[in-house]
Amino acid sequence: MEKVIELRRAPAAEREARRVVILGATGSIGKSTADIISGADGAFQVEAVAGGRDAQALARVARELGAKFAALADPSGYAELKEALAGTSIEAAAGGDAVVEAALHPSDIVIGAIAGAAGVGPTFAALSAGRTIALANKECLVCAGAPFMRQAAAKGTRLLPVDSEHNAIFQAMGDADLATIEMITLTASGGPFRTWTSEAIASATPEQALAHPNWSMGPKVTVDSAGLMNKGLEVIEAHYLFGIEAARLDVLVHAQSVVHGLVAFTDGSVTAGLAAPDMKVPIAHCLSYPARIATAARRLDLAAVGQLTFERPDFVRFPALRVALEALRAGHGLPTVLNAANEIAVEAFLNRRISFHEIASMVEQACDAALADGVAHEPESVADALAMDQAVRERARASLARQDVSSAVRH
Amino acid sequence: MEKVIELRRAPAAEREARRVVILGATGSIGKSTADIISGADGAFQVEAVAGGRDAQALARVARELGAKFAALADPSGYAELKEALAGTSIEAAAGGDAVVEAALHPSDIVIGAIAGAAGVGPTFAALSAGRTIALANKECLVCAGAPFMRQAAAKGTRLLPVDSEHNAIFQAMGDADLATIEMITLTASGGPFRTWTSEAIASATPEQALAHPNWSMGPKVTVDSAGLMNKGLEVIEAHYLFGIEAARLDVLVHAQSVVHGLVAFTDGSVTAGLAAPDMKVPIAHCLSYPARIATAARRLDLAAVGQLTFERPDFVRFPALRVALEALRAGHGLPTVLNAANEIAVEAFLNRRISFHEIASMVEQACDAALADGVAHEPESVADALAMDQAVRERARASLARQDVSSAVRH
Repeated sequence: MEKVIELRRAPAAEREARRVVILGATGSIGKSTADIISGADGAFQVEAVAGGRDAQALARVARELGAKFAALADPSGYAELKEALAGTSIEAAAGGDAVVEAALHPSDIVIGAIAGAAGVGPTFAALSAGRTIALANKECLVCAGAPFMRQAAAKGTRLLPVDSEHNAIFQAMGDADLATIEMITLTASGGPFRTWTSEAIASATPEQALAHPNWSMGPKVTVDSAGLMNKGLEVIEAHYLFGIEAARLDVLVHAQSVVHGLVAFTDGSVTAGLAAPDMKVPIAHCLSYPARIATAARRLDLAAVGQLTFERPDFVRFPALRVALEALRAGHGLPTVLNAANEIAVEAFLNRRISFHEIASMVEQACDAALADGVAHEPESVADALAMDQAVRERARASLARQDVSSAVRH
Repeated sequence: MEKVIELRRAPAAEREARRVVILGATGSIGKSTADIISGADGAFQVEAVAGGRDAQALARVARELGAKFAALADPSGYAELKEALAGTSIEAAAGGDAVVEAALHPSDIVIGAIAGAAGVGPTFAALSAGRTIALANKECLVCAGAPFMRQAAAKGTRLLPVDSEHNAIFQAMGDADLATIEMITLTASGGPFRTWTSEAIASATPEQALAHPNWSMGPKVTVDSAGLMNKGLEVIEAHYLFGIEAARLDVLVHAQSVVHGLVAFTDGSVTAGLAAPDMKVPIAHCLSYPARIATAARRLDLAAVGQLTFERPDFVRFPALRVALEALRAGHGLPTVLNAANEIAVEAFLNRRISFHEIASMVEQACDAALADGVAHEPESVADALAMDQAVRERARASLARQDVSSAVRH
């Protein structure tokens, strides 16, 4: 690992820069990635960047990082992107194929940070081309975990986890043999409702659910965190990522979000991954893995934090976590069903169409229904998983529409 | 690491047992080692055991483990040992050379658990023969750290740390490049005086110093723990063991003794080693490294512990820690001086010849004096280190005798 020293000491011209593609360059993970790369003194060369709809923001990050190629997912933004990149040698492109083209640019690592189902295709394309992926998209593993891991194994490539919990576990595991692992524990901050009663949680408003104590994230994942569904989705990701079955995956509520994950071994030893809550830490780790770069990320000061608390999660007050773990244990593609139904449920909650406690029950009903009528099945491919995802979303939307009608009739 | 599975599943006759030598088989570490080996279903074959003065206890452990050779350090116990082993094929021997002979028995790992300066010679002999050492003796590294590590490098062998703090750090480090490590932190329980005032600590009695909250250990190390000298000695050990200079070694007071050590990296990541306070955990880890065996050691239940606290150590109330860290920074063999002077000081405290706060000042004076008159020097060899150790002890004893005389005159 002398590379680390080289990266820091050798003059920029003499060292070989690591080639990076950033999918989701205009989002929060993308911006943190850009910050790290800008501060790494030429250690990285950005080959391509891809964004969603914001042509100006994409052009800005492409210029800042000296990318060669910039792809906007929204085809209608092509002209704006082209103009914003005028006078540079950066090639502009737009549309779904352009994002895949960005993903396939020759690189040493692809940051897979496009949010939602839109990230699945381009990330899978990069994986299929044998690229190492720093994975920051949840859907790839929650919706299509088995096909993703099969492809990674077939291509001999690696999915490096950007999520703080999985990154911490990845670091704590080292190269441990899975047979020596007794339990992998993901911690959960417990969110804004950690100390609330069941009744108070059941009637929580979107504003209350969006007030997360430790992390600043998008509304979907913040609502997921408030009900611990997010932790359930992360346990599902961990199952696929680390190849560990549900019985060896555990969750602990840890309000300070300092210890992100723990690995307990059969001899009684436990290793853990910790960090200040700053996404730059896991991003930098993935970017330079297996070497490490120096970053200006926030440092953990345990004496300043003073106290760390741990408690078992309460499945009664947080039924979403129970529903997610049951879906993982049940198999038959239920994680795919769970994820799709949850997206629709959270959207309905944010639009005040359902109450907070109905999120978990709506998801549970979707899982039960998909099992009963055979929609749920172990996805054979990413396309199969995405088709199941779509079918479940449509059914969930239809069910919501019926509920709205019956609710209107009642009032 | 398929060995782990083999160790657990293959019938005893079909697998190759790991050959073990236990130096210090009748002490606390030796007994825990014997427990693990007895419970490991033939995974280990004990080649030789060595003990100090208790012939009966040594014979018992030799029989229990089916050792081939048993060596008692005290030559006067030979007849008793011989008789206690009558009717077995276990060869009995006694005296210093017999202990070295035990150390040199062909083996895959040597448990170096003879306490005090007596452990240095046999452990160094085993190291010099190219054996892997599971090191549970403090003096090897505190008194003769540089010669030990030079010899380990020369012989291409490894010192595996049994001490919980160093073992935790070793596990948390993985195969990290030292250049990527920003800080290594050892935790300290804070001992029985953690919340006491300076005045109360200064006049603490041996009974108060011996009441350690978390660990049951011998009187010397318990007194060392009460004043945090023990943590200073462990920082010195960590310096040699991991090849990390004093500026990157830190101490945090952590009353619950659950997180034993932490490794902070240049990218902001932190990994930590945790375990319930049960010495079986690090012993089992060393015994089977790099594989892992399953043990019945106590498991860490963070939800049951509930709360972990961390605070900076107080160098005013615990001057021994300051004195130890200064000795490490000063170099010139001062760790050797510190360790020797401390042994005499603790003994004097336990015999009520000096007060608790005089332990640190006596050690500090010994360091200053040894620097001033040239007794302190970087030890060139283990013999050189042991000679310095003896010189310092004699001077400390003489100084104590003068003090007793002047104290008697005063009263």
